[in-house]
Amino acid sequence: MKIINSTPRSDGFRMPAEWERHYGCVMIFPERADSWQYGAYAARRAFVETASAIAESEHVTVCASANQYENARRMMPSHIRVVEMSSNDAWARDYAPTFVTNGSDIRGINWGFNAWGGLVDGLYFPWDKDDAMARKLCDLFDKDMYDLGRFILEGGSIHVDGEGTCITTEACLLSAGRNPNLSKTEIENYLRECLNVNKVIWLKNGIFGDETNEHVDNICAFVKPAEVVLAWTDDTNDPQYELSRSCLEILERETDAQGRRITVHKLRLPAPVTITEDECAGLDTMNFKPTRTPGERLAASYVNFYIANGAVVMPFFGDPADEPARELLAALFPERKVVPIAARDILIGGGNIHCITQQIPMF
Amino acid sequence: MKIINSTPRSDGFRMPAEWERHYGCVMIFPERADSWQYGAYAARRAFVETASAIAESEHVTVCASANQYENARRMMPSHIRVVEMSSNDAWARDYAPTFVTNGSDIRGINWGFNAWGGLVDGLYFPWDKDDAMARKLCDLFDKDMYDLGRFILEGGSIHVDGEGTCITTEACLLSAGRNPNLSKTEIENYLRECLNVNKVIWLKNGIFGDETNEHVDNICAFVKPAEVVLAWTDDTNDPQYELSRSCLEILERETDAQGRRITVHKLRLPAPVTITEDECAGLDTMNFKPTRTPGERLAASYVNFYIANGAVVMPFFGDPADEPARELLAALFPERKVVPIAARDILIGGGNIHCITQQIPMF
Repeated sequence: MKIINSTPRSDGFRMPAEWERHYGCVMIFPERADSWQYGAYAARRAFVETASAIAESEHVTVCASANQYENARRMMPSHIRVVEMSSNDAWARDYAPTFVTNGSDIRGINWGFNAWGGLVDGLYFPWDKDDAMARKLCDLFDKDMYDLGRFILEGGSIHVDGEGTCITTEACLLSAGRNPNLSKTEIENYLRECLNVNKVIWLKNGIFGDETNEHVDNICAFVKPAEVVLAWTDDTNDPQYELSRSCLEILERETDAQGRRITVHKLRLPAPVTITEDECAGLDTMNFKPTRTPGERLAASYVNFYIANGAVVMPFFGDPADEPARELLAALFPERKVVPIAARDILIGGGNIHCITQQIPMF
Repeated sequence: MKIINSTPRSDGFRMPAEWERHYGCVMIFPERADSWQYGAYAARRAFVETASAIAESEHVTVCASANQYENARRMMPSHIRVVEMSSNDAWARDYAPTFVTNGSDIRGINWGFNAWGGLVDGLYFPWDKDDAMARKLCDLFDKDMYDLGRFILEGGSIHVDGEGTCITTEACLLSAGRNPNLSKTEIENYLRECLNVNKVIWLKNGIFGDETNEHVDNICAFVKPAEVVLAWTDDTNDPQYELSRSCLEILERETDAQGRRITVHKLRLPAPVTITEDECAGLDTMNFKPTRTPGERLAASYVNFYIANGAVVMPFFGDPADEPARELLAALFPERKVVPIAARDILIGGGNIHCITQQIPMF
């Protein structure tokens, strides 16, 4: 693995869209008991189901700590690769490399990672093992790496259409805990150079209460060029309403890098999901304080799905909105099987299917 | 990675000779300070030189603990892959998988490992991480695995010619600390079934004082079918003399699996190598006792070389016998470059070049 000091754009590499063909997917076995209930037992079943659904159509590598390797190996089906790799938590989307391709080979981007806000509003400390993962994963896959460690970015805060357009949120990328010394223009230039895009569409916000500072991957995702799904509620009393409404207005007046208008499919949210007292009791404390409060609203959204080669793996919440969401995604991805995962136990950890996966383009 | 419950022989897989084409090689970054002087600093240079020499003609993967990953990554050239994997020590030969091939794919054998003798005369406790490595490495390489965990064997205790013959030592394979409940015949049957060989040549002993219970890979190695090098001394006062003499007699009267007589090349040993007081002072204690005693003789032998695709990587000891040994190996491997490594710091750890490497056949 060589460290490359140029940029993907200058070398003719670009970040492909998630629906372009994958070599495979990286996940991380959940372990920390202040993120995941019952010593992470609850979430593991959903992780295994997610990995299994993805592995039906692409290679899956699951990283597990030395302590959890044996357990992860036992729980994951045998055709899924389990490798030993230490981390602080299990969010592959946010600290596995963002891979870029030139059509024949791929390279990884190592962004800086500071647990969604560092000492300003980060979610845990330390985050050193997470931050080292992109480098270790490039090494594991024998792929060279662009080292952007000086620039804080999580994979969940960007989506691309593979044709020159990136979508992101101001709430996250302009947050005080990431790159406070960079202007919006400078941040956009990083995206242009590293993802090799010509247009960045800036949404203002994401999902209400999303503790990642409102990652785009929980509110809006490309489903094909010039076409997105947007998390939506018709309830004007829900604080989410104004956030989604603002996104819609921006998307309706924007064009993509190719000058196309953008079709927006409203993907209606479940009723607000709140954590119960019993669930909170299943979480360890962090720095002597609880990590969740009973009744706290969780950032549930169907937009947080993963597009595998042969499937769209999406969260279900046991809500009447589950089935309409499934039907909409099935209609938008007619050549893929839509696989719902009962994802409440992932959601309690703070993210969902897209957050715990990172695709590796074909090479 | 699937666990296979049949045997390589029944599936048409065999262990290839070391000179058959490799995909690559596995090594482990040294770390434990009671095996390696100065917190393993001394040996690392020799490990890096060994890995670099091998990587000129095949892929090299170096396993490093979470703590040492960053350091290993910094020290190893960038074209060598470094992966995170925990171990108790750094002897890839003895606990990486023994790979078998059917000509188109390979599978690994996971032998049981108990630190060269378990609670009888093993060299350290615990050995759980070492014992888990074969499984993890099969997983890493996405290769299926024969689980022979019930049978204690180290890779350094066997050599094969790839044409049906295995060579080993009674001192090791019949030792009380390995498989005391198995007869010699039963042990031989394991070798026949797992390596897919038809003839096992049993030498009595290995190198004097070799704390592995005298692994064959330190005293005798195939260099081609029906041709071996044998560690040798002409000094009849050296306790090694009788050990080597006995090996020679056995080899001269044996035939291999194909019925051929065996040509023996004497590979003359260096003068006895002993550890100094200063070197001993550079080693941590184990269980409150020193691991080496000043003046202790080390099991130095030129036989402990590694055959890479394009090189023979051999130990040098700063002895007048270095150069003749190099010349003999150069003559025996005319198509490979012989690369000497100043190996005293590996030797102090208890082994040499062959002990710290494990080849992976082409797949």
